[in-house]
Amino acid sequence: MFTLENVYQASFVLKDIIRNTGLIHASKIKPDVDLYIKPENLQVTGSFKVRGAAYKISQLTAEEKAKGVIACSAGNHAQGVALAAQRNKIKSVICLPDMAPISKVEATRAFGAQIELVNGVYDDAYQHALKLKDELGLTFIHPFDDEYVIAGQGTIALEILNDNPNVEAIVVPVGGGGLISGIAYTVKTLRPNVKVYGVQAAGAPSMANSVKEGSILTLDSVKTIADGIAVKQPGQNTFDICSKYVDDIVTVTDDETATAILTLMEKQRLVAEGAGAVSVAAVMFDKLPVKGKNTVCIVSGGNIDVTILSRVIDRGLLKSGRLCKLSIALTDKPGQLRDISAIIASFGANVVSVNYEHAGKGTDVNSCIISLELETKNSQHIKQVKEGLTSQGFVLV
Amino acid sequence: MFTLENVYQASFVLKDIIRNTGLIHASKIKPDVDLYIKPENLQVTGSFKVRGAAYKISQLTAEEKAKGVIACSAGNHAQGVALAAQRNKIKSVICLPDMAPISKVEATRAFGAQIELVNGVYDDAYQHALKLKDELGLTFIHPFDDEYVIAGQGTIALEILNDNPNVEAIVVPVGGGGLISGIAYTVKTLRPNVKVYGVQAAGAPSMANSVKEGSILTLDSVKTIADGIAVKQPGQNTFDICSKYVDDIVTVTDDETATAILTLMEKQRLVAEGAGAVSVAAVMFDKLPVKGKNTVCIVSGGNIDVTILSRVIDRGLLKSGRLCKLSIALTDKPGQLRDISAIIASFGANVVSVNYEHAGKGTDVNSCIISLELETKNSQHIKQVKEGLTSQGFVLV
Repeated sequence: MFTLENVYQASFVLKDIIRNTGLIHASKIKPDVDLYIKPENLQVTGSFKVRGAAYKISQLTAEEKAKGVIACSAGNHAQGVALAAQRNKIKSVICLPDMAPISKVEATRAFGAQIELVNGVYDDAYQHALKLKDELGLTFIHPFDDEYVIAGQGTIALEILNDNPNVEAIVVPVGGGGLISGIAYTVKTLRPNVKVYGVQAAGAPSMANSVKEGSILTLDSVKTIADGIAVKQPGQNTFDICSKYVDDIVTVTDDETATAILTLMEKQRLVAEGAGAVSVAAVMFDKLPVKGKNTVCIVSGGNIDVTILSRVIDRGLLKSGRLCKLSIALTDKPGQLRDISAIIASFGANVVSVNYEHAGKGTDVNSCIISLELETKNSQHIKQVKEGLTSQGFVLV
Repeated sequence: MFTLENVYQASFVLKDIIRNTGLIHASKIKPDVDLYIKPENLQVTGSFKVRGAAYKISQLTAEEKAKGVIACSAGNHAQGVALAAQRNKIKSVICLPDMAPISKVEATRAFGAQIELVNGVYDDAYQHALKLKDELGLTFIHPFDDEYVIAGQGTIALEILNDNPNVEAIVVPVGGGGLISGIAYTVKTLRPNVKVYGVQAAGAPSMANSVKEGSILTLDSVKTIADGIAVKQPGQNTFDICSKYVDDIVTVTDDETATAILTLMEKQRLVAEGAGAVSVAAVMFDKLPVKGKNTVCIVSGGNIDVTILSRVIDRGLLKSGRLCKLSIALTDKPGQLRDISAIIASFGANVVSVNYEHAGKGTDVNSCIISLELETKNSQHIKQVKEGLTSQGFVLV
């Protein structure tokens, strides 16, 4: 088991590789919580993962360094290992399934890693990595279940305690548990009164279930937009540390996470990935007893595909009543679009798209459906527009 | 005219009101430039404007403070003045046109300002503000053409020179010219060899034209997505300072600005508004001689409506070949959608929407048009998909 000395040492080792990401006071996200964001999405490589990888690499022997390291990941861990290896001037091999998004492959390659695309899924890439490790004598860098990796992530806690001495609670996204293990160990050793809470996606509650059961459980499947924490089974080290030091682990739904992503963009101008935003989602949706408390939410990363981001924005806008989709059944006669447009305009809503289709089989041959997308102010505003349309005889379907 | 002493004093005054936003090394945006971002989008209120407003207010007499301040703005200046007044425990009145976005009105009200919604456009709100100022004895806080406001914005230069002593060039968004005046004066006084460049929107080049002509010019109209710098006429103070201290002022198109907004989201996880991103756009699109130079781009603000952001993302994705819209003319017979889907899937593209419409007047009664939206990898990939479809006899329209 590592000690606090390792965390301090990691902090020293990391000084020239990472940024201290500071804290951002986020008073508008949840007015009844004194909320701070630890923006690890602004970390080099866009996530905290480089901390653990870099400290682990610093602890290798000269012989191990000469041979190089290997990891299996399509995400933040891959980039963390690649950058850490590059800064230590050692070789890194990253195995990924060949269906991994091209943008993530290129980002990892840009940090100087040798990329091995493996036919199949993650498990195939993992098996290939173990084979290469043995063949080439490389050191395998585990994404979370390694004491040096955990100690490296713990440096975040030192920064928080230093920048915000009055902190009362720290809220941490949990996948395999490396991040929260490093933070919980460090915080509970230095400042046992500070609460440490974990947050998992409701579609991947492996650590939450395991800690509750008192033994490591494996999920059959995981499904969440927070792909960075979609882990089927916690590690042994991380399970032990979480069981001992973490105050509670809660879950959030994908809709809650999407709302948190949108809120972070609008109120804090920060782009967070799903895994990074679950901590904020947990506070926004009252999953934790932090009312009135000085609370730090760790936003662990920001590597989200913009096409997904675009969909998350639309979902968030729909959910908060600022985008509205309407379908209206019409008989196909002149002037109806004009009338509908006039009604909508009179309520100050803005039409952003129109779709017009003739009816299908089984309906009146003269009937058609018009589908509209409107920019609106809120749910109340949508209700007014809808009432305005129905009061003029239009039928919403 | 203010002096360097004012800038240092402003820096001291602002300490408890603003964040030092630090610098973010952004090596991936433009690999042949040693690029840093000064993220004033992460400033409290989401833009640098609070700096000038807060310093100006600190310099009012006790009598002036007792009466309060007034400003006319629907944007960043409004929130800056409101927060600065709130922190100084004085009254603020903000006049805005009644068509201002409700989100900005609410954000300003949340900082404790008294809101005056004025029937009409900006100029009407401005006239009303002047009237109220006289009636109530309020002090008018100009958004840019005021020496204390300018000195307040200059504090950004002190932070940059302190955090990055090797800086060779600073790139600054320019609207009325308050920000660049403060920065240029401070930089050229302390470190005359550091270049200071301004960037305006091509649709609102008031300062660029004025400095080139050697006298203040007024544009008839302005049109740009960078609404925060859509200013028709520079101020007298700012014109004089820019003429004397700024090395060059260039312009960028809205498409270039949209690309910069998308790049900042993807590569730096930062949400920038149009006005905030023009500096990065100028570097990305080679408008400035900064190749190989240690260059700081000021991202001045992040207050962008998410509905606009969503459109900017789509525009950027289309431009970079990662989203593609296709229309295919079909005769209306069974199995065609199946065939098209199979071809698209065989190239690894992803269908995100389908629209199917019967043909209009003047075309074959059996014909129809199918419109598809695809997620693609790049322009080359789109070309492959299109060739795949045409080689199977489908007609793209």
